[in-house]
Amino acid sequence: MPQRRLITGFSNPTVKFLRSLREKKHRKASGKFLAEGLRLLTDARASGRLPEVLVMATGRDPHPLLEALEDDVLTAGGEVLEMGADLLSKVTGKDNPQAVAGVFAEFDTSLTALDRNSAKIWLVAQALRDPGNLGTMLRTGDAVGAGGLILIDDCADPFSVEAVRASMGAVFTQGIAQARWEEFLPWLRSGAGQLVAASLRDAVPYRAAPYASPCFLLVGNESRGLPEDCEAACDLRVTMPMKGRADSLNAAVAGAVLAYEALAALD
Amino acid sequence: MPQRRLITGFSNPTVKFLRSLREKKHRKASGKFLAEGLRLLTDARASGRLPEVLVMATGRDPHPLLEALEDDVLTAGGEVLEMGADLLSKVTGKDNPQAVAGVFAEFDTSLTALDRNSAKIWLVAQALRDPGNLGTMLRTGDAVGAGGLILIDDCADPFSVEAVRASMGAVFTQGIAQARWEEFLPWLRSGAGQLVAASLRDAVPYRAAPYASPCFLLVGNESRGLPEDCEAACDLRVTMPMKGRADSLNAAVAGAVLAYEALAALD
Repeated sequence: MPQRRLITGFSNPTVKFLRSLREKKHRKASGKFLAEGLRLLTDARASGRLPEVLVMATGRDPHPLLEALEDDVLTAGGEVLEMGADLLSKVTGKDNPQAVAGVFAEFDTSLTALDRNSAKIWLVAQALRDPGNLGTMLRTGDAVGAGGLILIDDCADPFSVEAVRASMGAVFTQGIAQARWEEFLPWLRSGAGQLVAASLRDAVPYRAAPYASPCFLLVGNESRGLPEDCEAACDLRVTMPMKGRADSLNAAVAGAVLAYEALAALD
Repeated sequence: MPQRRLITGFSNPTVKFLRSLREKKHRKASGKFLAEGLRLLTDARASGRLPEVLVMATGRDPHPLLEALEDDVLTAGGEVLEMGADLLSKVTGKDNPQAVAGVFAEFDTSLTALDRNSAKIWLVAQALRDPGNLGTMLRTGDAVGAGGLILIDDCADPFSVEAVRASMGAVFTQGIAQARWEEFLPWLRSGAGQLVAASLRDAVPYRAAPYASPCFLLVGNESRGLPEDCEAACDLRVTMPMKGRADSLNAAVAGAVLAYEALAALD
């Protein structure tokens, strides 16, 4: 059975399938997602995640990391597809004949898949809409040694191409869970865990606040911030200095500043 | 002379001009840029920056802030343009009939326009390519009370629609300068100023490092980081904990964590 195939023609069903993974409904229907770039795929491999399908351009320059990846994919029973750079750019949306992409199975994102005691810090985002911010939070989580990112209510899709790209591979190393607030809060209260949010009300300075492990750092929606009941449910509300006119930070930035502060307290 | 006009037709030269401002070459040629959204325009107004041209959809819901803005623009001799929501969406690239946009004159971005003693913190980015990161850094600068953002070498355009949007109005409150490294370094050394970068080499922990005012926090390109000679020219190199696989942070995030640390030391 040929596991290495050459794909030609824009109407090829495989090309159509790969392109469809840029849309959430098709990702959900197939349970697959797309990750692009040799670096990302190499990080995935190092984390024990291999693509089911590896896609690259014909005539691509050889690269030892790519060869190792190809071997592993084939050994694991996956497929390696080659296609012209024009076709591949339709899949990746990029004009880069050196591009490589992989199709991965989506992970289990239920709360019960998380082991809260496996890390001192967890990031939690409520209604975070920007896939770039989401990916950036995954990347920050990786940097501070967080256990993962918990996505509350209607967040961007962590398996979107943009989020995967912004995560710089952390989508493969960080735990990811998705839940409604009404599911998250009982889960949190069923075990140890301090819920912390940046807030302007009834809050203590974020520097040297009494962070406790496992510490769940909650950030809110890019425009609306956190709903009042989410803030009220927190064990600790902290304020960050706001010296400017705008009185706000990018959500991923606020999460990162808090995460590094908690790390300094808990590490 | 009518200062309030109704614009119809996709081929109207004004519509063409407004659309052209989405491209850098047309911004440079005209010296104008586009900012979108009532909140952004209101922030601009509060900072003493009025659009030369204010654009809105016909039949838009009245809003007291918009009326105040219209009055100010007309009083200052500017223009108010109304157009159908379909036309406006061609200008803004968004399907939002409540959209408002303004055309502003670009600012002086020479180093000599900055007063280094007006703030304790300055953000500096070298070859930062992502306009979202650039805008986020402006926003962070506003939050920490920085004097502004200095863009070294080939950075994204601070006047791009994406950067302006991500800045959440900080493009109007923060100083912005653009310079080559060969210009920046002599300018920096011509007065007081500590140059600081996150680094893995010959560095001290970023927590409680000896930050000094005015403190210039330097971040590098998203993929390549800082060139060696830029790092070597720094007065202080600091390390941030990296607990994960990837050993890196988003550039805007790294800048923000450093900026909040410097703020705690210098405020």
